[in-house]
Parts: sequence; C-alpha cells; structure tokens
Amino acid sequence: MTHQAQHDTMISGAVGADIIPPTVNPLLQRERDRATLTKDLVTQMTYMIDDGKDKTARRRHIESSLFSDPLFSERDRYIRTSAETFDIGVKRSIRLIDFKKVHNITFSETWDYVYRALTNDLTFGVHDLMFVTFIDQQGTEEQKARWLGKARNMQIMGTYAQTELGHGTYIPGLETTATYIPSTEDFVLNSPTLTSMKWWPGAMGKTSTHVILIAQLIIGGKNYGPHAFMVQLRSLKDHSVLPGRSVGAIGDKWNFGGVDNGYLSLENVRIPRKDMFMKYSQVAPDGTYSKKGNPKVMYTTMMVVRLKIAQECWQSLGRVLTTAIRYSAVRKQGPIDQGGREVVILDYQTQQEKLFPGLATAYAFNAVGKRLQEVFNKVQADIEKEDFSSLPELHALTCGLKAFTTDTAVRFVDMARFACGGHGFLLSSGLPYSYSRLSAGCTYEGENTVMMLQVARYLLKSAYAAQNGGTLASSVAYLAEDTSGQTWPAQTETDVVDSGLLYKAYQHRAYRLVNQVGQRMAQLMGQGQSQGVAWNNSTVDLVRAAKAHMQFYTMATVFDVIKPLALDPAIQSILQTLSCLYAIYMMDQSIGDFLEDGYMNTDQAQMVHGQYLALLNAVRPEAVPLVDAFDFSDLTVHSVLGCYDGNVYERLYEHALRDPKNKTEIHETYYKYLRPLLTEHQSKL
Amino acid sequence: MTHQAQHDTMISGAVGADIIPPTVNPLLQRERDRATLTKDLVTQMTYMIDDGKDKTARRRHIESSLFSDPLFSERDRYIRTSAETFDIGVKRSIRLIDFKKVHNITFSETWDYVYRALTNDLTFGVHDLMFVTFIDQQGTEEQKARWLGKARNMQIMGTYAQTELGHGTYIPGLETTATYIPSTEDFVLNSPTLTSMKWWPGAMGKTSTHVILIAQLIIGGKNYGPHAFMVQLRSLKDHSVLPGRSVGAIGDKWNFGGVDNGYLSLENVRIPRKDMFMKYSQVAPDGTYSKKGNPKVMYTTMMVVRLKIAQECWQSLGRVLTTAIRYSAVRKQGPIDQGGREVVILDYQTQQEKLFPGLATAYAFNAVGKRLQEVFNKVQADIEKEDFSSLPELHALTCGLKAFTTDTAVRFVDMARFACGGHGFLLSSGLPYSYSRLSAGCTYEGENTVMMLQVARYLLKSAYAAQNGGTLASSVAYLAEDTSGQTWPAQTETDVVDSGLLYKAYQHRAYRLVNQVGQRMAQLMGQGQSQGVAWNNSTVDLVRAAKAHMQFYTMATVFDVIKPLALDPAIQSILQTLSCLYAIYMMDQSIGDFLEDGYMNTDQAQMVHGQYLALLNAVRPEAVPLVDAFDFSDLTVHSVLGCYDGNVYERLYEHALRDPKNKTEIHETYYKYLRPLLTEHQSKL
Repeated sequence: MTHQAQHDTMISGAVGADIIPPTVNPLLQRERDRATLTKDLVTQMTYMIDDGKDKTARRRHIESSLFSDPLFSERDRYIRTSAETFDIGVKRSIRLIDFKKVHNITFSETWDYVYRALTNDLTFGVHDLMFVTFIDQQGTEEQKARWLGKARNMQIMGTYAQTELGHGTYIPGLETTATYIPSTEDFVLNSPTLTSMKWWPGAMGKTSTHVILIAQLIIGGKNYGPHAFMVQLRSLKDHSVLPGRSVGAIGDKWNFGGVDNGYLSLENVRIPRKDMFMKYSQVAPDGTYSKKGNPKVMYTTMMVVRLKIAQECWQSLGRVLTTAIRYSAVRKQGPIDQGGREVVILDYQTQQEKLFPGLATAYAFNAVGKRLQEVFNKVQADIEKEDFSSLPELHALTCGLKAFTTDTAVRFVDMARFACGGHGFLLSSGLPYSYSRLSAGCTYEGENTVMMLQVARYLLKSAYAAQNGGTLASSVAYLAEDTSGQTWPAQTETDVVDSGLLYKAYQHRAYRLVNQVGQRMAQLMGQGQSQGVAWNNSTVDLVRAAKAHMQFYTMATVFDVIKPLALDPAIQSILQTLSCLYAIYMMDQSIGDFLEDGYMNTDQAQMVHGQYLALLNAVRPEAVPLVDAFDFSDLTVHSVLGCYDGNVYERLYEHALRDPKNKTEIHETYYKYLRPLLTEHQSKL
Repeated sequence: MTHQAQHDTMISGAVGADIIPPTVNPLLQRERDRATLTKDLVTQMTYMIDDGKDKTARRRHIESSLFSDPLFSERDRYIRTSAETFDIGVKRSIRLIDFKKVHNITFSETWDYVYRALTNDLTFGVHDLMFVTFIDQQGTEEQKARWLGKARNMQIMGTYAQTELGHGTYIPGLETTATYIPSTEDFVLNSPTLTSMKWWPGAMGKTSTHVILIAQLIIGGKNYGPHAFMVQLRSLKDHSVLPGRSVGAIGDKWNFGGVDNGYLSLENVRIPRKDMFMKYSQVAPDGTYSKKGNPKVMYTTMMVVRLKIAQECWQSLGRVLTTAIRYSAVRKQGPIDQGGREVVILDYQTQQEKLFPGLATAYAFNAVGKRLQEVFNKVQADIEKEDFSSLPELHALTCGLKAFTTDTAVRFVDMARFACGGHGFLLSSGLPYSYSRLSAGCTYEGENTVMMLQVARYLLKSAYAAQNGGTLASSVAYLAEDTSGQTWPAQTETDVVDSGLLYKAYQHRAYRLVNQVGQRMAQLMGQGQSQGVAWNNSTVDLVRAAKAHMQFYTMATVFDVIKPLALDPAIQSILQTLSCLYAIYMMDQSIGDFLEDGYMNTDQAQMVHGQYLALLNAVRPEAVPLVDAFDFSDLTVHSVLGCYDGNVYERLYEHALRDPKNKTEIHETYYKYLRPLLTEHQSKL
C-alpha cells in the first residue's frame, strides 16, 4: 500500500492496523538476541524487581484484567481536550470501585499495580491514598466506624485540605480556623482572608463530598495549632454545595487534567465536636484540650504519601527509559566512521550518557524503595505500640528520599526527552507527559528544598548528638566516626569501582559536608548572627550536605540490597555493574566535593571518570533487556516511541493521522482566515 | 465583598475587575522603593538592554499598538483547547500582515519586537524567519523576482522542509530525491519510504501553500547531495492538496498548539528546472552540474535561525524570572528566626540560588547576543563579497551559542518553576508554557549535543592548527597559548571575583580540556581505534570541552561588552556584580574542572564558593528592579504570578474562576458518573 493510499484510508477513518507491522523491528530484535540477558533471565529480573514471582503474577493478572476493559486500554490520552481528560478521569475512578471489589485489590495493590498500570490518569488518587489512610490512622474507633467503610466504598468521596492559597509547607502559617464553642459543642470554621482559602487539594473542586480540613484549633481564644476535621462540602442527595462553602476548580495544571484540584473558602461553617479527629488530640465537651504521643504523628499520613512517591519514582523513570532506550535502539543518525553504515544512536557515547545513569538509577531506586518499606513497617508497628522514638529518623528518610528521588528522576526524564530529539517533543512520545507529572512530584507533598532542609536539620542534630555521646539512628550512625583528614585508598581502576571503597568515599564526603556546614553556622553565630539568620545563610550548603547524605545512603543501600540476592550470576553481574554506575556517575558529577579537601587526587579523579565511561560501555549490550525487565505494558508506557515491538515510525505516523486537524483535507482556518487573503491577492495578480 | 459573593459574581459571568486591586502590592512596592536602582535608573537599564533609547521607544510603540487590538491582548492562553490555540495562531498571523505594513515593521523588528511581545503564539514563524530569508539568500535574481515579493506579502505561504521522519541533523542521510530529467527539463521528487517522509516543518500540515524542499539531487544516476527546491503543495485557488503530495499535521506538541507542524510524502511530483535554488549551485538544461563558493553557504539560513534562537534566549529566561522574582518578593513562607515575622521567600538563600544565577545569565546572554550580531553582520558582508573564510568560525559560534544558551536557560527556567512551588505548576503561572517552549529550542534547528560536537570539532581543528603554526580565528586564539602547568594566581576574596583572574581560570580550563581530549583521541587511535570510533569514545569529553569553551567565550564577552559602557555608576556596579555572578556561579558548579589538575587549591575553591554566596546577597536588594528593567509587558509575561502590580493571589483566584469546569456549580460528571453511585449507595444506607 502506498503512503498516499494509506493516508487516504486513514483520513477516511480506517485507522491503524494496516500501518503497524505485526512483527518486532529487526533492530530491536537484534538487541534482544545478542544480549547476555536472555528472555528467561529477563523474566527472573522482573520477579526480582516485583519482589517475587507470585507478585509478578498478581500484577500481570490485575493489569490484563484492567486492560480487557476498553476504558482502560484506550490510546487517546494525547488527543483529548482538558474537559475530556477530566471526564475520563472521573469515569475511570468510578469504574475502578467495582473492579477493585471483584479482584479483592488491597491498598498497596491499588498503588503498586493499578496506579502503575494506568499511570495515575484518575481523579480520586488523593481519596485512595490520603483520605482513607488518614481516617484509618487518625480516627478514633468511633470515627472509623462512622467513616472508614463509607470512604472505602466511596459512599463519601474525600480529599485532604491543608495547603492554602498563601501558605504551603509552613504549617504554623495556616490561617483557616476552627473555633470551639462549648455551649453548642461544635466548631466554627472560617477562612477569613483570600490567602487562607484552601487551594490545591485533588478532587476538591467539583467532585469530593467531604474534606479532611487542617485548621488552627482555637479554644477560649487560645491557638492550639493545626488540627484535622472532617467537613462535608456537598450534599449527598444532589451534590449541591452546602451553605458557607465556596468551592471550585483552580484551573488547568501541567498534564494533570484528570484531577479537579480545588479551592475552598469557609464562612461560619459549623461542625459537631465529634468530627474533629481525636485519636491523638482531644477536645472535651467543656473545651478542655488534651493530647498524647508525638504531635508529629498527625503527619504520618504525609509520611505514607512521601514513602509512596519515593517508591513510585523508579516506575516513572523506568517507563521513560523504556521509551528512550527502545527508540535509541532503532533510531539511526549517521555513521561512526566516515563512509560507514549508519548506526543506531544507542551506540553513541553521548546518548549512553543521557540514558544509562538514569537506568542505573531506576534500578537503584527500586531497591531503595524496598528497604524504605521495611523501615516504615517497623516504625508503624512501633507507633501502634505508642513508641514514637523512631519517628524523627523516618521523617528525615521519607522527606529526604521523596525529594532526592524526584529531583534526580526528573533530571533523567528531562535528559531522556532530549535524547529522543524532536520526536520526544511530540505528545505522542509520552515524554512531555511523564516529565510534567514527575515535575509535580518535586513540589507537591512537601517542596523538595524544604524537604532537604528537614534532612539537614536532622543531620546537624545527629552530628551534635554524636559529639556529645548520644546514640544515633542507623542511617546517620556514620556521623559518630570522624573521617576528616583521611585520603582515598583507591589505587587502581578496579579499586575505584570497589563497593567498599566507594562507600568510604561517600561516607567521608557526607561527614565532611555535614560537619563543615555545622562549623560554618557556629562561626556565623559567633559573628553575632542569630541562629535563624545563620541557618538561612547556610542553606545552600545545608542542602548540599543533605544531598551528599542521601547519595551516600542510597548507594550504600543499593549494594546492601543486591549483595545477598541469590540470582543467576549473569544477573548478579549486571546488577553489580548498574550499582557501580549509579555510585560512580554521581561521584563523577560532583567530583569537586571529593577533590576539594584533598581526599581524592588527580589520578583518582581521572580513573573515576574513565571507569564511568567504561561502565556506560558495559551496560550498552544489555540496555534493551534491562528495560524489558521492568515489564511495563505498552499501554502503561503509552508512547509511540516505546512499544515492545519497536515500530516507532509506523506508530508516529499512525498517531499523526489521528490528529483532529487531519479530519478534513482543507482545514476550517483556510475558509476563516487564509481564503480571504489568498483570494484577494490572486485577483490582483 | 465576601469571597462567597465574589465567587457568585464570577460564576455568573462578571469576571475580573473587582477582584484585582488597582494598586501595587505593598510588598513589591517596598522592593522598588528600597533599591539603589531607582525608577529612572531602571529606565536607563532598559535602554541599555534594548540597545538604545530610540529602540526602546520603537519597541514600546509597536507593543502598545499590538496590544490595542483585543486579538493580541486577550488572556485566555491557558484556557484554550488545542483546536482553539491553532485557530488563534492562524488568525493572529494573518492579522499581523496588515499590522506590519501599517507600521513598516522590518524583518529584525518582527523578531525583536513583535515576536517578543506575543511570545510566538503564531502559526507562520517559519515563513517569516526561514522561508523568506532562504529565498532572499539562496535565490537567483530571477527567482527572487518571482518569489520574494509574494512571500513577503504572504500571497504564497511557505515553510522549510529538511528533517524527515527517520532523519534529523545527519543531512547526508536524507532520503527524499530530486532526479533531473534532461528531456523534459524538470525534476521528479520522491520520498520512497516511510522514513523519508518530511516531518516537523512548521505550518506545513494544514496551512502552507509552498515548501522549500531539501532533497538529494540525482543527475544521470549520480547523487550530488542535498539541494533546495521550491515545491507547491496546495492550490492557490481552493487550497486543495496537489497530486502526488500527501500532507497533514503530525499531532500535538508540548505547548506548541499554534503551529501545524506537518508531514509530507511525495510521489513522482514534477517541478521545472528553474525551481531549484540556483544561486550557489546550478543544473544546466542538459544536466551539467556546477557550483560556486563554500557548499556550507546553503546553511546560512540555518545560521540566521540559530543566531536568532541564541539572541532570543535571554527573553524567555527574562520573562520567567520576571515572574519568579516578583512572586518571590510577595510570597511568604515562615520566619527566619523562630517566633519572628514571616519573610518573603526572596530572602531565603536557597531561593536566591534558584533565581539570581539565572538573572545574571539573562543579562549575560543579552550582551552576548549583541556581540554575536556584530560578528554575524561582518561575515554576512564577507559572503556578499564571496569571501567565505569566516564561515567556519561563525558556524561554530552559532551552533555553540544556540546549544549553550538554550541548554543553560532551560535549566534556569526549570528551577524558576520549582522556585514558585505548586503555583508554578498551574498553567496560569505561565511557567509550564515557558519551560516547554524553551525545551523545544534544545532540539529544534540542530539538536544541542550535535551542536556542541560541531563546536568540539572546530576546537580540535583549531588546536591542531595552533600546534602547526596556523592562524586562529579570534574566538579560539587562546588555543595558541599553552597554559598547562600554571596555577591560579588568585590570593584573596577580591581576587576570585577579579574579571582578569576569572578570565585566566576559564582560559586555562578550556585550553586543558580541549587539549586533553585531543590527546585522549590520539591515544585511542594509537591503540588501534579508527578515527570515528576514537571520536565516539571521546564524545562525552568533547562535549565537556565545548561547554568549557562556550563558558569561557561568554564570560569573556560579557565583561568585554559591559566595560566600555558609559552608564550611571550604580548601573555599572550592578552590571559588574551580575557579570561576576555569571562567571563564578558556573565556576562553583564545575569546581572539579579547576581543582582536578591542581590549577586551583582548596582555599581558592572555598573562596570561590564564599564569593558566590556573597554575590547572591549583593543581588538581593536589586532583584526586582533588575527584572523590571527587562520591561516586559504584563501581556508578554502572561502569568498570574508575574504582573507588575504583584497582586498574585487575586490573579490566581480570578484565573481559577475562569476554569471552564466552574461554569456550573454541579459538574456534568456528577450526573454521568457520581450520581448513580451515590444514589445507589445512599438508598442502601
């Protein structure tokens, strides 16, 4: 069939099947055939990534069940209008309720399998993740009895309203108030200013019936700080907005059309006393206030969210690299030797540099996410026993990993988009979508710089404790060991990729930067600066120290997680390669940190760089199977460049033909704007 | 008016005026009042940026004339559908034709003033920039007589078709052919494969009537390489597609909805001999081929485009920083000292780090753009005299600056979006739009890595020439001076911000990295690698060397441009501060490059870092006037966060109320999806 004929056929409405070949692109097949990682080994890696064969089976079952529904397997994401995107977001979310019941899908399966498969094109994510979780974690037994079942069945639809138009992560600055009135035993809710309007909560604008509202609790004129309240927004009979609430959508976001993020202002809204969340803080009928445990416990829901963001990060990155690496294995761009044959762009060193450190990072973050879950489970169990001692470490870890993983991943996603050139700029490539979604993760649920400064604060406190003989949590235990003045013992090229020596270098650098900024702060305070001013004047370096700590923590964790795995030697070997690349890429990028104090010398720095380049080369033959092992469905990858079959040009063309502008040969803008001009001119000729 | 009442008013359709105060936000006014740069000095800076008071006047006149037309002053950019965006893109482009005639707007004014004001929401940019320019530069007198007038008057609408679906910057790989048939004296055009389809040209999909087609010229079975041809696509009578052409739009891009980028495949399309561009290459009637000059002269149009991209870059960055800095001057986020008053986030060091290096860069790129224009004008004059000797340097400079400016600016735009937190993720902030537009610039008109490798090739050639006694162009003359083994003479904090010493450091580093990678390549070839393979295995380091060269070139140029300016001392002083910040920020970021070979020592590195922080502090009080001086109209900035009056919360709210989802209190998704569920459940309760 000629292109002309194909074109005519497509325009007439018979889209698709005849353009895309039924076979795998030979260039991509060649990659799979030549790699050490055979199809069987790739499957084993998938099991490892999923944390077990049974989990892979369960995930695949849920995915194939989902995708058997045309609502979940359609491919129009990049053609829809904003209004259509919202419509399908709601429709899908509602469709999922029954789906989850039929398949007995748990909370973590919702996140790990359903959201993974659909890449979050859903309206009620905050409901699933925060509204239900918060009730479960912060509600009394009586409150859980009243709300939890309804929330789980979506008989009430809710969201979490903390952020205000003028107030983000600085919680004490929230202006919304809940004033207790003992005589009527209820709270009066008010958002007295424009800046106090709740702003951003997902699904608050047009869909949620309820909201968990964070407001300053005022009793007898005294402010007891932010507390949580259940507030109904809309009638359950007809969805009309209840009196005293102004609520609406806040306008379009960057590729987040499925969610009606909302604003809410409150004017003398009354709610009964029993609708304040009372598990950890109580207001008695007479207005007596009491609390138990660590006040930070109110933010454990936030910790869950940060944990999930950090854990999900490898998936966003993995999906994008699946696209970029498959595309790079079929895209040609000139020969390497003049007059030679054109090679695929994955053979170019600069292309490898754009993609393979990210690939190593996706594997690393998968491992780190598993470790973080173990830590979280332990702390959660402690909290159940009212032991809050591990909260500060978990807080620092979840803040740090949320910020570090999203910051890191978004850079690699950006690079992957550049690695796909112009085609990566088409919405149909899926890369713009992935970039902006991940970019959102850098500012929501705790802006990343603020998060890194939370880590820094924890590090300085720990360093201070270490100097004063206190005990340190395991993730910061290294701060008790003074490594200043040391030099790096690495002598050979083998040494610089030795995990033990890499560990030492990262430890030294984190120790140095943490202590250096601590001393700098002390110095500034010695010069008369207040603690707050000295802190502010050190924040660039505090973030730098926190980043060094997170790089150390993650590189150490990665080697720690992969070491005891009992897998095929070929898999162990490539995991070792990827882990080294993860560690050495970050080192090469920040080599000044290691050189500055003389810890590393010129030769070592050049060996690090050389080994970094050598590791890119080592990953090259396994790159395609390494993304295959992520086992993302084509529908999840959702990119014309990233399908398993590698037929990228056919899919680009097929998607182009579905551009609504192509519905007619002559576009309506011709009749509206061009014809008058052209006709006028031609008549003058 | 209460928010409830405002909300009700807005929903009922009376949008706007009553929400936004008529006065400047006092926090922003305070910034302007306290700064050394008074309103008068700001105006003087605007003149400097515009390159003269008369140019500022002309620009403002054109802007105010444009914005007096509601088509150009509307504010619905972030509410429109893709179809509406395209519609307005065409409508505006057509409206501009008369506007330009009425106001006698020249080619460079179109770019510098009209496009600047409208930030490119236009369909026919490629027509204005490339189609017309190409005819002018590459057409014979006869061809110019036939085409130029019509093109300028848009009696024909055209684009430039080089890129193919499977082929980007590697021009020899293009597959489209133009085969000369002496018997009929015409060319037969074919795109024989899917990958040979022309893909991407702006306005080719649905609007252009003509295209400048780049195709392999075949005469008597011999391929003479890529040449340019004028090809008509659509009838001038009724816009129907002419026989043998398949043409359509390629689908939506990332915030580029105003342009119908297109695909084109050709099947035995015949065009007359006289429609090949013949100024520099000729095909005689009998098929005899001849050419004159440097074959690269065909790409001078591309050089103009790259020049313009590099020159425009400071504007994109400047617009974004106008938004982010004004917003940061009114946004509060906690106190610096515990218990103190909340400060504006511009007082935070981490916020300054996100914004001020970018601000310094915007000023630097403005200066570099002016210098580049001078170089370009000189080379252009040489070419007119058929002297092509300066082409290689200009090629390297335009490639390098296009890549370096877009790469650098896109990073700062990204950071500015993060600096605005969640609100920066709303389309109404304008930041997502700016990011994706600038991101496009990193891959179009020459993918940036390919561009940097062109620079690297020029650097290696120049270094080789230097070693062999050849003469070097001025931008690479430093390669003749061996600086290896030297150390940095800077001793004090004053020294590290001395422009001469900064110059030395950048010179040393560029020299070292260029020569180091040259030696590395020689070493690899000595080990038996072919030149192509050795080149490929050095590309990471070649890009690094090219970047070091561009940083050196730009920092040197900036100091060179600002030095002789005769401006108010306060302005000279702040320009000096910004230039130092530009240089020292890049140094601090790549400090490893300066430490690695022992050129710099620990103390110097720490002084560099200390001075970098001190410069952030020095810029702080002048930050708002420094963006005011860019003199972007609110309509150009096009951001609820970035208006001159700083009333960000009111504008956020006003824009939210215009969200189409807010048209009704109860959204249609309730009736479609939520009501059945809620009704069913409630009846069960």
